[in-house]
Amino acid sequence: MRKGERTRHMIIQKATALFNQKGYVASSMVDVMNETGLERGGLYNHFSSKDELAIQVFDNAVETMITIFQEALSQDKNAISRLISVLRVFSGLCNNTPIPGGCPIMNVAIETDTVHPELKEKARQAMEALRQTVSRVIIKGQERGEVNADVQPDAMATILISSLEGALMLSRLYEDQMYMEQMITYLEDFIVTRMKKT
Amino acid sequence: MRKGERTRHMIIQKATALFNQKGYVASSMVDVMNETGLERGGLYNHFSSKDELAIQVFDNAVETMITIFQEALSQDKNAISRLISVLRVFSGLCNNTPIPGGCPIMNVAIETDTVHPELKEKARQAMEALRQTVSRVIIKGQERGEVNADVQPDAMATILISSLEGALMLSRLYEDQMYMEQMITYLEDFIVTRMKKT
Repeated sequence: MRKGERTRHMIIQKATALFNQKGYVASSMVDVMNETGLERGGLYNHFSSKDELAIQVFDNAVETMITIFQEALSQDKNAISRLISVLRVFSGLCNNTPIPGGCPIMNVAIETDTVHPELKEKARQAMEALRQTVSRVIIKGQERGEVNADVQPDAMATILISSLEGALMLSRLYEDQMYMEQMITYLEDFIVTRMKKT
Repeated sequence: MRKGERTRHMIIQKATALFNQKGYVASSMVDVMNETGLERGGLYNHFSSKDELAIQVFDNAVETMITIFQEALSQDKNAISRLISVLRVFSGLCNNTPIPGGCPIMNVAIETDTVHPELKEKARQAMEALRQTVSRVIIKGQERGEVNADVQPDAMATILISSLEGALMLSRLYEDQMYMEQMITYLEDFIVTRMKKT
């Protein structure tokens, strides 16, 4: 990687943690200068505006999320194990892993609701990719006889993801893992007793 | 109500809709001037800073939420009916009722996470009041023999509220009621088939 690319990469990495914690709207280029130690010229040389940086930062956050989901799903081909792995990824988000500040998709969804259509559209695409991933795990599981045929893949993907996002919000608000744990205990039981084909 | 009080009340009402849609962090006093038609002096005469106004606005949003929950819960004393009523309140939030912009507690929780400790503490108190309300409905229902004794009130309150908040986030992100409807269909069935004492 050349020096210019290294600096660009460093800015995106540091701004990803900053924007996800402080907020895509609340964070400023001055905050990014403070986080990176760059002068104004050094930063604007790479990103001409906060909006331009915010788009790159969200893309980076989503790529990080995709990687961690792919890792989680690659460990076991069984659909029930894969759904449990999805719960574990959300549990990790509670503990600032892989990105501090919770789920970047939810953060952008709430923060940019009426103020940043381009970021909101990106959040929508990322959420849809996540929903489709969970839905496909269920469909594959039904084809393999691991998941009950009466489970509706699309609706169940919505239900699982919504439940986990909501519990993540509560745990971050209370700064207490318990709320996510209550949800995961419930969903694990639900997946094993109601979704798993016996 | 005197003229000064009327103006103050009007500012809070208009700012509540503005802050809940645009965001407590992203909204400015200039936005409030535009919404209310007041000059700078007219606005600052009532609120010395955006932070002071934001606290009042959030209190107003929470009071509005409490009122609508109380109305929903007063219609039927049966715990199962009351839990279904809670689902209906969240369905209303999807349709910008009683406040446009979704759930003020979730909005403030996400937006102020690391940037506004006072508002975050207020959001935590409001969430806890909501959680306690749902928990008490379940406990009363168990005392009356309407809800299964093996339901854990505290955990179930977390699960129901998290699920609804998450689905609200998805529906607002997609600008499509379907996600909330998928969740409500699921939770109604869950409440009637798993929580209701038969």
